[in-house]
Parts: sequence; structure tokens; C-alpha cells
Amino acid sequence: MSKATAIAPSNIAFTKYWGRKDEMLRLPENGSISMSLSDLLTTTTVEFSPDYKQDEVTVDGGGLEEDEAQRVIKHLDRVRNLAGIDTRAKVVSENNFPSGTGLSSSASGFAALTLAASKAAGLDLSEKDLSILARQGSGSACRSVPGGFVEWLDGDTSETSYAVQIFPPNHWDIIDIVAVVSENKKEVSTSVGQQSAQSSPFMEVRLSRMREKNERIKNLIADKNFEEFGQLIEAEALELHSIMLTQRPALIYWTPGTLQIMKLASHWRTKGIPVYFTINTGQDIHLICGAENATQVQAKLKELDFVKDIIVNTPGEGARLSPNHLF
Amino acid sequence: MSKATAIAPSNIAFTKYWGRKDEMLRLPENGSISMSLSDLLTTTTVEFSPDYKQDEVTVDGGGLEEDEAQRVIKHLDRVRNLAGIDTRAKVVSENNFPSGTGLSSSASGFAALTLAASKAAGLDLSEKDLSILARQGSGSACRSVPGGFVEWLDGDTSETSYAVQIFPPNHWDIIDIVAVVSENKKEVSTSVGQQSAQSSPFMEVRLSRMREKNERIKNLIADKNFEEFGQLIEAEALELHSIMLTQRPALIYWTPGTLQIMKLASHWRTKGIPVYFTINTGQDIHLICGAENATQVQAKLKELDFVKDIIVNTPGEGARLSPNHLF
Repeated sequence: MSKATAIAPSNIAFTKYWGRKDEMLRLPENGSISMSLSDLLTTTTVEFSPDYKQDEVTVDGGGLEEDEAQRVIKHLDRVRNLAGIDTRAKVVSENNFPSGTGLSSSASGFAALTLAASKAAGLDLSEKDLSILARQGSGSACRSVPGGFVEWLDGDTSETSYAVQIFPPNHWDIIDIVAVVSENKKEVSTSVGQQSAQSSPFMEVRLSRMREKNERIKNLIADKNFEEFGQLIEAEALELHSIMLTQRPALIYWTPGTLQIMKLASHWRTKGIPVYFTINTGQDIHLICGAENATQVQAKLKELDFVKDIIVNTPGEGARLSPNHLF
Repeated sequence: MSKATAIAPSNIAFTKYWGRKDEMLRLPENGSISMSLSDLLTTTTVEFSPDYKQDEVTVDGGGLEEDEAQRVIKHLDRVRNLAGIDTRAKVVSENNFPSGTGLSSSASGFAALTLAASKAAGLDLSEKDLSILARQGSGSACRSVPGGFVEWLDGDTSETSYAVQIFPPNHWDIIDIVAVVSENKKEVSTSVGQQSAQSSPFMEVRLSRMREKNERIKNLIADKNFEEFGQLIEAEALELHSIMLTQRPALIYWTPGTLQIMKLASHWRTKGIPVYFTINTGQDIHLICGAENATQVQAKLKELDFVKDIIVNTPGEGARLSPNHLF
């Protein structure tokens, strides 16, 4: 087979990945816990062929910036190395959601690319090996390989830093409702912003507490303790953004719309709706609630004229080959 | 004399006061540097008279909440103790700006109250003693006693914790343009929010760095190094708010309008206008620029429909008796 199509989910991190102990290998400073999302998906087709003189990459119908294209080509090189081939590839990738706004399109994108490219190159990698490989393209992409509730084991080597499923998608029926508040791309990419994580005076304290925080959140997911889980993920999102606000240069990813929904979440709680927010490294905001409250939260968001799109996610499957992947 | 009127300025802190090492005495965790503001003023008249059966307090034409009134009465008690009197007082106070929105009306208010009440009680306190006394009513009020550029010496006792002028108002012609973005009162008062400062995991690291930061900012003011000064005050404001965001419960004082102007400030800098923001514990935002750029910054703010008021301040005088204070 020299052509394959894969679908991979974006994921929402409940504890965040920020800062790397190895830039080249993208080994994170700390482990993190996430959920793969049912409705934020990237579909990517990779075809290796001697007919191609160079790698060609199309995302959402257009080309990529030079540095982004180089990142994809470097990832194809990793796959070619593993497979022992040197043919060029054509990559066509589609997101069903806006990219570069904090919805982790690089996570779903590199997970889908990893699976499609490795299959197209004739490899048959385990979930663990796919996760290790995806991580080298974009750190959080390793978490988009398994489905459901996921832990990224930070590891000290490339072979020990990968993501595993800790609970299947049907373990807990919580919902992630994404409010898209702006479709403008971030001014500073996550990949660049991360490199200055250590310039925050607070980074060291944060890191010293992450192991315990990850244990706590795993227990709360195991126990389906929604209230404490919600409090913890909100505090963790605020902590991540406090690190970014205190970096040099400061990274201010929130927009007025982000902030307004942050404040509304606690207001809605006082009105009896158990809903908590989390935010990745961007402006869009994720509202987490039980399935029984999803309709109500959606209705609240629909009243806000600055919300451009609302995307409702259940815990989703991990990266998989497209049902139509055989050509 | 049993009646006196005083005027006192609000002040803008360049390094912030957040957290107290002694709640009762309002001794701050760290020293701080501020500027007294020419155009954010409280005017307060205090009259002691045996005719009054109880203390009466009017602010901006209305009564105060019970806890706020008690705080004023407790301050009158401090003055009565010093003067050895026990007559009740009538207090009439007017702010020329909105109170409770982060413009430090309690600083100007308690500074004016301290001067007017002590004079009306027949005391003739030094600037240092006025500052010590004002601090016990509201910590940052001690900084509103001197004029110009001011340092609050943190101190370990009541007698060593007071504010002094480090440079007179005419030392440096910088301007503080306040953008009032909401006239809603804060949901959590500064006084209450401070009590949880230590619940932020980052508070200890912050405090370990404050002494050096204060030295640095004094040097930058001495040298009139506007660019580094601006970078430092912006970073300090972001650090303060990061502490508040990571407290339990989290304090989110910014509103969408605050955030929008924060982002605009750095945008305006890329367009060649040297302007930096700082924010106290509230939603209103202070834009600091050189006098030569004040008109331009004001014009930019006037374009923003959500800005409710714009107040332009030069470095101002400290607390003083009203020219009409003799009746």
C-alpha cells in the first residue's frame, strides 16, 4: 500500500503540556491528562509515489507557511526512515474546525499524519509506537492517538514518552462544548511560545506540583467526581495562563470573548448549572459539563452574539484509518 | 478647630501591594512604588461635635454598606484615641471618579479622611504619622499622603511601615491616562481578596523577588528610562493578576474591555506609540506614556465605544487641606 487515509481527534487537556525538557524530541516537562474529542477531527491522506519530485502538503485546501510545511516534511522523513524508503509524498489534510485558534489542530493533524503516513509507507505500528512518533511532530499529538481518557507519560527518553488510554470513551458521559470566539490565528504559535516557558518565575513551582495534580485528576475521573474535577481543571487552566502571562515576552492568548465566557461559567454555576471551563493555548474556550446539562449550556452560548461556532464533543475514539482508506 | 476638609489623590502602584503580613495593622508583605495622581481626588469634610449622637458617614451623597461604614468609624476611633476625645463625627466625602472599580478610591478616601479627621480633632501630625495612620484604614492610603513618586516602606512594625516621597511631581513628566471600562463595583473587594493571597502557589516566589524589583524601578524612575520602566510595570501588573488568578477562589478582576486595551497597548507600541499599561485590583486600566504622547493615546481611547470615561493624570500633589477648610 502506498496511500492511506486516517482520521484523528483533537484532544482537550485537563492538565496541560507547557514546557519541554527536550526540544528536539519534544519531551514534555510534565505528564498530562486529556480526553480525545468526538467532533474535532482531522482527516489526512498520504500517498508516497516515485512520481512526486518533492513533498506536497495541502491543508484545508491551501498551502502552509514555509516553517509549517518544513515541520510536516520532517515528520514524513521520520516515517521514511522507519520504513526504509525515500519516495516523496503528497499529503492532503482537512480539519472540520478552525486551525491555529487554540483547538489543537496540530494535535489532530500530526496524529492523523502519523497514522496515514506510516500505513502508506507499509508500516504497521502499535498504538504506543504511533504515539511516540506523533509526539515528535507535535507534542500533544501523542495524546490524540488513543481514544477516551488519556494520559501522556512524560518519560525521560523518546521510547518512554507516549500516551495511553486510562479509561475508554464510555467510562464517563461528560461533554466538552467548544465556544469558538474568534477565527483569527494566534499571533504566537504554541510551539514558539513553549520555548520561553522557563522565563516565567513561576514555572519551577508549577512543575514541582504536576505529578500530584495528575494523580488527583486521574482519581477524580475514576470516581466520576464532577465537582472537584471541574474545580481542578479550571484552576489548572488559570495556572497555565498565569505562566504564559508571566513569561517574557508575555503571551496573552485570551480575547475579550474568552474572558467573558470564563466569567459567565462561574455565574452559570451560581444559577445551578454545573459547568466548568478549560482553555488550551489559544482563545477558544471549552465548557465541560455532564451530558444532562449539555443542552442548557449550548442554549446559553447561543445567546452570545460573539460566539462564532459551538462544537459539542463526547469522549471520542482515537486515531483510526478511514473506512474508505483502501483505494 | 473641630471641622476640617482635606483633599487626597488616588495613586497608581507601579509595583503592587498584595498580601499582608499583619492583617490588623495592615502591614504589607512587600514594599511598593507608586505615583500620586493629579485628577483622581477625594474631598472629605470631618466635623466632630457633641451634637452628634453617633458617627454619620456620607460618600458620594449616599450611605455606605454596614461593613464599609464600620471601617470608617474604626478609623475615626483611631483619631479620637490619639486626640483624647470621644465626640462623634459627621463625615462627608466626595470622589470625582467612580469608586470600587479599581481606581483605588479607598486609598484617596482614607488619606483624605485621615488628614481631615486629625485636623478636625486638633492634631497636627507629620506626613510620616499621617501615612502610618492612613495605612491602618486602608493599606494603600499611606501612599496617597505624599505627592509625586512615592515608596511605601513595608516595615515590620506599625511605626516603620509608611510612605515617603522619592521624587517630587515635577521630576518626570509621565502621564497616567485612566480608561474606565465599567462602572460596576468589583464582586470581591480588594480587602477581602488580599486575605487569600497566600493561597496562590506562586505567592512565595513573587515575594522573594519584590525587594530587587522595587530597587530596579526606583533606578528606572531616577534615570527616566521610560522603555524599561514601561516593560517592568506591565510585567508587574500581569504578575499581580496571575497571583489573583491562581488564588483559591480565583479572582478575575479583568473585564473584556480591560483585556482589549491590554492587547491594544502592545499593538499601539508596534505602531510607534510608547505606551504601557498597568492595572490595580479592578477592571479599570491605566495607560502610562510620556507627556508628548498623551494626546495621541487619548485619541486612540476615544475611538473605543466601550470606554466610559477617560481621566488624564500628571504626577500629583499628596493629601492637603482644602483651601476652603477653615469655616
